Amino acid sequence: MTTQEQLQQWHELAQQFRVDSIRATTVAGSGHPTSSMSPADMMAVLLSKYLCYDFDNPDNPNNDHFILSKGHASPLLYSMYKAAGVITDDELLSLRQFNSRLEGHPTPVLPWVDVATGSLGQGLPIGVGVALAGKYLDQLPYNVWVLLGDSETAEGSVWEAFDHAAHYTLDNLIAIIDVNRLGQRGQTELGWNTRAYANRAKAFGWEAIEIDGHNLTEIDQAFNAALAINDRPTVIIARTKKGKGVSLVEDLGGWHGKALKPDQEKEAIASLGGERQIEIQVKKPETQNQPATTGNAQPLQLPTYEKDAKVATRRAYGDTIKALGAARPDVVVLDAEVSNSTYAEDFAEAYPERYFEMYIAEQQMVAAAVGLQVRNYKPFASTFAAFLSRAYDFVRMAAVSRANIKLVGSHAGVSIGQDGPSQMALEDLAAFRAVWSSTVLYPCDANQTAKLVEQMSDRDGIVYLRTTREKTPIIYSSDFEFPIGGSKTIRSSDQDQAAVIGAGITLHEALKAYERLKNEGIMVRVIDAYSVKPIDVQTLHQAAQDTEGNLVVVEDHWMEGGLGAAVLDAFAGTNSTPADDGSQLQLIKLAVSEMPGSGTPEELLHAAKIDADAIVEAVKTQVRQTIGVSR
Amino acid sequence: MTTQEQLQQWHELAQQFRVDSIRATTVAGSGHPTSSMSPADMMAVLLSKYLCYDFDNPDNPNNDHFILSKGHASPLLYSMYKAAGVITDDELLSLRQFNSRLEGHPTPVLPWVDVATGSLGQGLPIGVGVALAGKYLDQLPYNVWVLLGDSETAEGSVWEAFDHAAHYTLDNLIAIIDVNRLGQRGQTELGWNTRAYANRAKAFGWEAIEIDGHNLTEIDQAFNAALAINDRPTVIIARTKKGKGVSLVEDLGGWHGKALKPDQEKEAIASLGGERQIEIQVKKPETQNQPATTGNAQPLQLPTYEKDAKVATRRAYGDTIKALGAARPDVVVLDAEVSNSTYAEDFAEAYPERYFEMYIAEQQMVAAAVGLQVRNYKPFASTFAAFLSRAYDFVRMAAVSRANIKLVGSHAGVSIGQDGPSQMALEDLAAFRAVWSSTVLYPCDANQTAKLVEQMSDRDGIVYLRTTREKTPIIYSSDFEFPIGGSKTIRSSDQDQAAVIGAGITLHEALKAYERLKNEGIMVRVIDAYSVKPIDVQTLHQAAQDTEGNLVVVEDHWMEGGLGAAVLDAFAGTNSTPADDGSQLQLIKLAVSEMPGSGTPEELLHAAKIDADAIVEAVKTQVRQTIGVSR
Repeated sequence: MTTQEQLQQWHELAQQFRVDSIRATTVAGSGHPTSSMSPADMMAVLLSKYLCYDFDNPDNPNNDHFILSKGHASPLLYSMYKAAGVITDDELLSLRQFNSRLEGHPTPVLPWVDVATGSLGQGLPIGVGVALAGKYLDQLPYNVWVLLGDSETAEGSVWEAFDHAAHYTLDNLIAIIDVNRLGQRGQTELGWNTRAYANRAKAFGWEAIEIDGHNLTEIDQAFNAALAINDRPTVIIARTKKGKGVSLVEDLGGWHGKALKPDQEKEAIASLGGERQIEIQVKKPETQNQPATTGNAQPLQLPTYEKDAKVATRRAYGDTIKALGAARPDVVVLDAEVSNSTYAEDFAEAYPERYFEMYIAEQQMVAAAVGLQVRNYKPFASTFAAFLSRAYDFVRMAAVSRANIKLVGSHAGVSIGQDGPSQMALEDLAAFRAVWSSTVLYPCDANQTAKLVEQMSDRDGIVYLRTTREKTPIIYSSDFEFPIGGSKTIRSSDQDQAAVIGAGITLHEALKAYERLKNEGIMVRVIDAYSVKPIDVQTLHQAAQDTEGNLVVVEDHWMEGGLGAAVLDAFAGTNSTPADDGSQLQLIKLAVSEMPGSGTPEELLHAAKIDADAIVEAVKTQVRQTIGVSR
Repeated sequence: MTTQEQLQQWHELAQQFRVDSIRATTVAGSGHPTSSMSPADMMAVLLSKYLCYDFDNPDNPNNDHFILSKGHASPLLYSMYKAAGVITDDELLSLRQFNSRLEGHPTPVLPWVDVATGSLGQGLPIGVGVALAGKYLDQLPYNVWVLLGDSETAEGSVWEAFDHAAHYTLDNLIAIIDVNRLGQRGQTELGWNTRAYANRAKAFGWEAIEIDGHNLTEIDQAFNAALAINDRPTVIIARTKKGKGVSLVEDLGGWHGKALKPDQEKEAIASLGGERQIEIQVKKPETQNQPATTGNAQPLQLPTYEKDAKVATRRAYGDTIKALGAARPDVVVLDAEVSNSTYAEDFAEAYPERYFEMYIAEQQMVAAAVGLQVRNYKPFASTFAAFLSRAYDFVRMAAVSRANIKLVGSHAGVSIGQDGPSQMALEDLAAFRAVWSSTVLYPCDANQTAKLVEQMSDRDGIVYLRTTREKTPIIYSSDFEFPIGGSKTIRSSDQDQAAVIGAGITLHEALKAYERLKNEGIMVRVIDAYSVKPIDVQTLHQAAQDTEGNLVVVEDHWMEGGLGAAVLDAFAGTNSTPADDGSQLQLIKLAVSEMPGSGTPEELLHAAKIDADAIVEAVKTQVRQTIGVSR
């Protein structure tokens, strides 16, 4: 039972959170005080009694995890950190200032923040990933707490999380929905109908507890009940008032994301009982267990393939990820119900305890990967490359989270053939290149794939690998190395009149074109740009120099943003590097420009003008022009 | 009551669908016969008795709409078209062949297909859009039927649709879930637990009817009941068997997406009772009403702004879309609960009957826009540019659908300031450029915004407008024109040593840099590239020619795929256009390369090196180099 004294202490702490949220935002001149005030009572109880967290050691594997999915309530989070004694009042008042760690929305620049939030609807799916790690991999008793806003439950990704959390019986996951009724521009869809939320959650297999989110006793009981439930996740649906405690703003429209003016601030703080300087000792996790280890590390034995055999690079991905699984107990794999196409199934069969089927829910898949890397696992997540576009906002935010995840997209480009354009990724290289911290890889043969997948596991940031549906000939010996950032010049002479740059499926077209051009007496260099980002600038510059700038880039991708753009970028200066001076670039991009239909891979490559025929034609045009210019 | 004869006819038709689905896929050598067979009985009843569709006039506004969300079951759809007499058996057997209209997944290349499907989980949210048009805009009694697979209900977008359809009481929307238990790689999450689906649907406010999807009487009753319900949408949850009717494949794993071999085909067809050539007369819609018109068209009066005033381009978007609303009764607006930030609220207040609040569900928002344009409305959908990334797969598929939608992203770039990176779109230009049929616009002042928004309404394809949070000075007179594909050279002389190319917020930095450089005796050209795609190639070539190739591109975007990439592309040759020969390009890209935090817009523009300081420095470096080279 909770004593009156305890209740009073919680109330005081909650009021402090409110006061501090107001103070920080008023100094900043912007931010979200009212959204910070509605869940303050719940956070006071959580921090005082339930959260087990070693603030001295954020990496303590036994720590609970708290994810503020409603990231705009960052003033509340930072007020909690102040009360926990890890940031000073001065730092609190640096909110939203340039170079402050206290950004407008939380990011892992702060050591106690697992992941960036601020794109709504992402905290719960990421929490699913952390809870999967806790229950199935770490096998530690920590809990994952996620505070959501009510508006963000409109995001489908939240329901992907509800679905998957129940499917995986994540009883270590506790969601709290702060039902303050008011969204950014008015009432939410469901208003204060907490029953509607509860019915939905229950239908998705959760325990649902409805409470008054300002009643400290109800809050305490709900948290207590949530911890006791051990066969399903729990959601606490709390009816609250936005701006609770300050009549100027409480439960009123027009106060979303607005700081109080200094005179309003003064009055508000007074009505909340003034400033307080309560500091609390957050409970450290009791057990000091180590995470379970899943399997012993064996020496890595990469698969190898005989030259000239035909093997799809997606097949090689499957073989390699299985090999990595044996060598690296920290490698985990996820797939969106297409593991028999991406060949993630090879890993799933060998290491079922480290494989998570995410069904057709790509947002949840990427979010789970982000959650798993919070606990230092190395997640590889795969689906058709086209469908990774479903999770683009999650990839974008993973970069803000400084997350280390590996994404594998199969079935890229028109070369998939008969299935038609809905299944063809033609924008993936552009999309992934435009992600901060990203690496973009596109192998053309199975041995190369194996070497690249190996390097992915320890590569930081967002690492994307594009694989091909079709079987392609093995052109490299299995002892070749393919460092990220490099390229392979596989045909060259001192008479090269042009250089053809391809990757993946088009590299093989380039090789065909090489033979035909050679037969006609035209020598071309062929460069395999398997590392699309970072690209091998030096080799490209050398090629341009050696061929009077005659570069032909050929890619199974839309014209914009892909390999051709990467090559062009290699010749541009940036804020920090000068332009490549003096090069006379006559670059031709061969890429897809018309909407494809169905057909054989050969028909579609030809129709898109990215096959050997198109390369031969482009090179000839260039060579003629160069001769013309030279004359 | 249904007669035995009727039941027998339906059964025969269903068997024909199965036989034809097998025949077409066996000839093609690939495709999805088994997924076509499970819902065949339901489709036989739908086509024979319930669907009201004038196949002679697909544009008849009274037509029902049928969306095959499980697009891989295209053989079933094409078999239905054959039975309706609109394609021949010969065409049916052209499935998946190059240049056939019968692509692996349906696209609007066929006149009876509203939208492309094949990325799962999109049919229902698009159906919501069509149903919104029917109920609120057309005000016609047609129904929207959507056939979903069970696996695709794992997509959150499906639950966004369940949520919104109930919110808008779309009693004209009928979803059918084909619960055949088997996904691509094994059992679905919920298997044959139709009750679980029903509970979820009910919790989201739908009527749910569970049936045996092979019992023709139950099917008939369910459709009948669905039509009678007039206060909510209905979902029919049908337990079926994948590959129903052929023991070789029925309810067996390993048969997803596999064609039968010719000998298997023969046996299968025999077991289904052989080939049939049933043709049916599909019921035409009874009423021949015209769509309601919402308001009278007034002459267009674009807003105008005084020079040198400071107005945010997002503010100008709001003013303009409201003005367009008066002039164009076909313009409709959607927003994802940020209409007071994007200023879509101006339209919402003036024309509430043509405004649809989509809450924080960007996938549903874009899908609804696609649905609305099926009925020829001109949808403008807005949110923060960063959050449009949530709907990237829907945008990709909208292009495959040849949809005409207008997307408006506000709060782009680091210049939004204090809110931090989660709210900053820094990849949107790259993402939208890499969409087929796209137009990408980025105005720098309010008068320009007005002219561009006006042009958007009749522009085909995916049209994206990027607006800015901050107020920026009006630099253009309101009588200037800004054609899509053009640019404005706003500073130039015959002594220009470099050209600075900006758009949006950076254009103003370019103008500041111009003044500072001029004071130091360095003349630069300043080009406003408001049309990022298509870009004004000619003006860029001229600038390169006039400045010895000294171009500086400055953008509030990541380094990859944005304005800088567009400018580089202007100098590359493609499959169809030759490279710009002889130009000696020394291009410098100024763009964002480090992850920003919070700060003032000025601080963040400076830190990212995309402000006037960075431009001045880049130009000086270039000019020095050129002089060096000239010497």
